[in-house]
Amino acid sequence: MALLETVRDPARLRELTAGELRDLAAEIRAFLIERVSASGGHLGPNLGVVELTIALHTVFDSPRDRLLWDTGHQSYVHKILTGRQAGFDRLRRSGGVSGYPCQEESEHDLVENSHASTALSYADGLARADAHLGRRDRAVVAIIGDGAMTGGMAWEALNNIAGGPDRPLVIVLNDNGRSYAPTVGGLAEHLASLRAGRGPGVFEQLGLSYHGPVDGHDVTAVQDALRHASALGRPVVVHVITAKGKGFEHTESNDLDLGHAVKPMDPLTGKALKSSPPSFTSVFSEKLVELAEQREDLVAITAAMAEPTGLLPLQQRFPGRVIDVGIAEQHAVTMAAGLSLGGVHPVVAIYSTFVNRALDQLLMDVALHRRPVTFVLDRSGVTGDDGPSHNGMWDLSVLQVVPGLRIAAPRDGTRLAELLAEAVAWHEGPTLLRFPKGPAGDDVPAMATFNGLDVLRRSGSLDVLIVAVGALAGLALAVADGVRAQGIGVTVVDPRWVTPVNPAIADLARRHRLAITVEDNSRAGGVGSAIAQTLRDADVHTPLREFGIPRRFLSHGSRAEVLAACGLTAQDVTSAVTELLAGLDAAPAGIDDLDVWPVHTGEER
Amino acid sequence: MALLETVRDPARLRELTAGELRDLAAEIRAFLIERVSASGGHLGPNLGVVELTIALHTVFDSPRDRLLWDTGHQSYVHKILTGRQAGFDRLRRSGGVSGYPCQEESEHDLVENSHASTALSYADGLARADAHLGRRDRAVVAIIGDGAMTGGMAWEALNNIAGGPDRPLVIVLNDNGRSYAPTVGGLAEHLASLRAGRGPGVFEQLGLSYHGPVDGHDVTAVQDALRHASALGRPVVVHVITAKGKGFEHTESNDLDLGHAVKPMDPLTGKALKSSPPSFTSVFSEKLVELAEQREDLVAITAAMAEPTGLLPLQQRFPGRVIDVGIAEQHAVTMAAGLSLGGVHPVVAIYSTFVNRALDQLLMDVALHRRPVTFVLDRSGVTGDDGPSHNGMWDLSVLQVVPGLRIAAPRDGTRLAELLAEAVAWHEGPTLLRFPKGPAGDDVPAMATFNGLDVLRRSGSLDVLIVAVGALAGLALAVADGVRAQGIGVTVVDPRWVTPVNPAIADLARRHRLAITVEDNSRAGGVGSAIAQTLRDADVHTPLREFGIPRRFLSHGSRAEVLAACGLTAQDVTSAVTELLAGLDAAPAGIDDLDVWPVHTGEER
Repeated sequence: MALLETVRDPARLRELTAGELRDLAAEIRAFLIERVSASGGHLGPNLGVVELTIALHTVFDSPRDRLLWDTGHQSYVHKILTGRQAGFDRLRRSGGVSGYPCQEESEHDLVENSHASTALSYADGLARADAHLGRRDRAVVAIIGDGAMTGGMAWEALNNIAGGPDRPLVIVLNDNGRSYAPTVGGLAEHLASLRAGRGPGVFEQLGLSYHGPVDGHDVTAVQDALRHASALGRPVVVHVITAKGKGFEHTESNDLDLGHAVKPMDPLTGKALKSSPPSFTSVFSEKLVELAEQREDLVAITAAMAEPTGLLPLQQRFPGRVIDVGIAEQHAVTMAAGLSLGGVHPVVAIYSTFVNRALDQLLMDVALHRRPVTFVLDRSGVTGDDGPSHNGMWDLSVLQVVPGLRIAAPRDGTRLAELLAEAVAWHEGPTLLRFPKGPAGDDVPAMATFNGLDVLRRSGSLDVLIVAVGALAGLALAVADGVRAQGIGVTVVDPRWVTPVNPAIADLARRHRLAITVEDNSRAGGVGSAIAQTLRDADVHTPLREFGIPRRFLSHGSRAEVLAACGLTAQDVTSAVTELLAGLDAAPAGIDDLDVWPVHTGEER
Repeated sequence: MALLETVRDPARLRELTAGELRDLAAEIRAFLIERVSASGGHLGPNLGVVELTIALHTVFDSPRDRLLWDTGHQSYVHKILTGRQAGFDRLRRSGGVSGYPCQEESEHDLVENSHASTALSYADGLARADAHLGRRDRAVVAIIGDGAMTGGMAWEALNNIAGGPDRPLVIVLNDNGRSYAPTVGGLAEHLASLRAGRGPGVFEQLGLSYHGPVDGHDVTAVQDALRHASALGRPVVVHVITAKGKGFEHTESNDLDLGHAVKPMDPLTGKALKSSPPSFTSVFSEKLVELAEQREDLVAITAAMAEPTGLLPLQQRFPGRVIDVGIAEQHAVTMAAGLSLGGVHPVVAIYSTFVNRALDQLLMDVALHRRPVTFVLDRSGVTGDDGPSHNGMWDLSVLQVVPGLRIAAPRDGTRLAELLAEAVAWHEGPTLLRFPKGPAGDDVPAMATFNGLDVLRRSGSLDVLIVAVGALAGLALAVADGVRAQGIGVTVVDPRWVTPVNPAIADLARRHRLAITVEDNSRAGGVGSAIAQTLRDADVHTPLREFGIPRRFLSHGSRAEVLAACGLTAQDVTSAVTELLAGLDAAPAGIDDLDVWPVHTGEER
């Protein structure tokens, strides 16, 4: 890594010969494979843009010139070239570099862009700002993949950029034929024809200049293309062809995802360093196949994420019953409404953080039309290592407003399977399941049920009621252990369906001295807040306190670290409960009236 | 209207000669001008699709064949031809026909589509459902304007439709060169070149068949084109050229909006029947020009709605400082973030109901980057006559989760002007103002301020605290009058900035026996709910009750009617307060401790 060690700043690149830049590219690839193998991360996308990134940093002068990385997980090479090699020792872990551009890390990171298809809009804004301010001394360069071009906002931006031929702007179309999965639809076919040199293309039809195709692994060729484009003084698309996962045989030979996002692995064999326990995703995956075997009208929809959302087994079992719409969440949701109108029951599998792309469609096109569409939100709550843009911490708050939408938060794999079956059997309107990334963990059985609530613990006098939302049931039980050790009576329930609020919670809360809620979601507008409203409406005056995520963005780190930073640990919540109870007056009359308690089943856990 | 009276069902159209269909078109135009002039409504779009709608209903057999109207305000002619002429006596009023397709009205209305750019996604879903179920006996036809084609989800859908050449689907591109305003960007230029007969076009590049251009006011020509398209058995775009506002000289001659959405007017002169009092929109409009005169870095952004959002005066005063991105809310918001990064302060003016199109962009691209972008949401709360899809009743709930976003709800014109000035002066992050459609009304002055809260009324003992959100201040004061007449003491405050919650509200609530909140927003997750959380966090145990909009969709009617249906009347709230107070225990100690009251200013109102 002799050359790489000398690169602390992009200016250094401009001192190297073409041959040295080629050698540097090889060193960067070795560096990426070594470090990302150790930590896990987005390997494939970055192996594909090594030469492209070198060329960009030699032709343009960052940060004066603005480089905007769409879907920022392709920014590792950019980070390596801008003085952040050391941070790769703890890639995506607290204290190390983030997996996405990050303003705090470097002046070279203008946007912390991680959701796809946004770079062209930023670029259009920057170009318009320069025009407004009369500045012509700094370039705007957006690097966007062909996969991201299937996202509607990229089209909105292209249309606007084409409408401003006097505003210079370089669009580098990094065409590797993939989003996460192979790029779908008419655009993919069209790009293939452009790759084959058949024009004119859509970009020129819209009024943009087009330059390409260019071999993205030939630094000199890319440099020439970028210089040409930059000199045009108008909006131009530079079509660069790259190979995702280039240089790592275990990704180049892996036609599933070309090493898109790898777990820690052996850099020589590509084998994962440890096997993962069954995840919520895999439970969903299995149950969906089982349900699809029973019902021919069941199909699943993904926005370019069939594998990570667990849809591959269904696709293998029933080819044609998984629809990949590309990176196009808006279309996914409204198309699901259309499927439903046509007599098919769609299951839309999507990461929680991406459902915000389709809120309007969920409200208007699905809920207003009372369509029985099932949404399955993976990566809900704190995901952690992917940083602030990938936590799914607002879904319960935002989606609580949707009239007629029923939301379930399964606490374990068994509940996930049960609730998915209930969801697809519901015909009155939309349903939604949300669960976190990671292992489903051991089952947490109910000791009884009370009007639809699962009672997970009933112990001692009726002091504190803990309402556990989804996977935080484990935390709730640990809190129960903690307060019980202090002689405090405790009841733990899991509502399973959390929205709308089950009024039985008010019945229970009335009989306790204190109620708390724990959820892996924003406190603002969360399930706790909704339960509090239900209590007020029912004239239940039991004090309630919500535990959840504060109203701020969360830095990257492990899920456990991030939850702890939010005060979501058994110790913190136990202390808070003890303190709250100590501050309360004596128990209200009748609070120990256990004969009205319908779920007291003798054997306590 | 001799012919029109005989048309109770589309089947009747197929009995008429070509000449009779031409006569029928003339009768429909006269009917539209007469009825829409009387009631107000979307005149221009419907005058443009008279012949097109007739042709559609002769070639296709609705409801077996599915006609999907994008941006459903172009469905009046469809309604007239499907047995709903009588309902136009009360167009958009309770008891009359809705201004959009409506499932309850007719089996011919499959989707109640009103937000733009969705029809192609529905159509793709329906076509995929037919493919899944093996049905080939029913057609799918989407009618979409060129304006709606600038919306990203239309692109997402086109890409998917092009990817399924074996699924028949007819896309009628109703090209009148307009959205609300003239269509913008590269697409508009491209469609102009297609109108001139120069091809090949973007649609064919993507792999769709293309047929056109066709004169949309020639019934026979459109029929021929539709029959041809239908027979192709694959996805096809039929490019139909129409004139918005055709047949009404006051709209054809009006180059502002071609009668897009008219108020009640004289059908002969086109003049409005009554002048409108100053609206929140016009106050915003004036103040924005004033601020722009002081600050050269201020620009405004609209998604194809410069006139209705009040941006025309700024455009006239400073050409180039209003950016119309077309129907492209996602791009509007991220482009604003880009402008801000480039040194410009953008004001994004948008209807509340459309901000849900850009939630992800507001969260990730603006808030995560702490960009000082100002959002101005017009038509917040209950809009009423436009029906369930146009109420802006979720903004306060949904947007409360956005870290760092400050939200203000001005109660009158003076406050709107003040808060807008505060918003654009804020540099730490995004701000948002929200106000309803309609007159700003008389000013409601504050009698005092208390830590940032405007005190609007302070009367008698400290019984009930009313927190009024925005334009419901008038309702709050009427409630104050109502309870005061019963000898109940009352305090009314307006927080001005409602999110995040001003902790001073907890201070005040602590000193009252009861607190209520009134807001023109969903109760779920609304300002009241957030205030209740603040009270709990501050250990304030004063009972609180929120008045707002229930968790359901609201049928069309006047704003007053719809608010009344939600229980948001002075009478209802007054009764509720009286009842709540009667149910409370005696006043807690110190509640009349007026010497701690810093805003008691002697002269009461």
